[in-house]
Amino acid sequence: MASFFFRAVEAAGFAADRATKADLAAGERLFLGLNCFEPGQSQASHVHAGADKFYLVLAGKARIRIGDESRIAEPGTLAWAPAGVPHGVDEALERTVLLVGIAPPPGRR
Amino acid sequence: MASFFFRAVEAAGFAADRATKADLAAGERLFLGLNCFEPGQSQASHVHAGADKFYLVLAGKARIRIGDESRIAEPGTLAWAPAGVPHGVDEALERTVLLVGIAPPPGRR
Repeated sequence: MASFFFRAVEAAGFAADRATKADLAAGERLFLGLNCFEPGQSQASHVHAGADKFYLVLAGKARIRIGDESRIAEPGTLAWAPAGVPHGVDEALERTVLLVGIAPPPGRR
Repeated sequence: MASFFFRAVEAAGFAADRATKADLAAGERLFLGLNCFEPGQSQASHVHAGADKFYLVLAGKARIRIGDESRIAEPGTLAWAPAGVPHGVDEALERTVLLVGIAPPPGRR
């Protein structure tokens, strides 16, 4: 049986040409994964009409945008993007790992 | 308007006689909060039949139980408790703050 425990940041992977993603856990109602960025990489602002989402910075530093707010976020900062609120990562300022949670999971809406 | 950004651990509060909770964010599909423990405090094992949940250790050290697994978890450890799997905190070994996410939120099942 797979473990229920993860060292989250150890699942991170990086690519020179694009931001990458890694899956951590998925249930019927909640998905957890990582978004991983090299410095200068970004995630275009987008919106989930039917899902609540958060980012938690696990490592690095990035400018995150939620609605009209844009902040440079460091480890321990939580960014909350409830359904319908646009969100994205304007730019990673260091090699950055974000824990991402989304409910319901992609494909279950 | 309230900010979409939180320094999660700064919302923590502690009580000598019991573990405490703090709300961080709630949407229709996802709730985020903190569980806060002084050393020796615990959270009895329990199960959510209709909700997926996780704990992420933000500070401290605690023995967390998910299903048949029990682990001493430190900052950065994620513990995944999908719907139907019993989970709890056997004992905090230090002053401990856990980020907790649950989908759907309490009262929305």
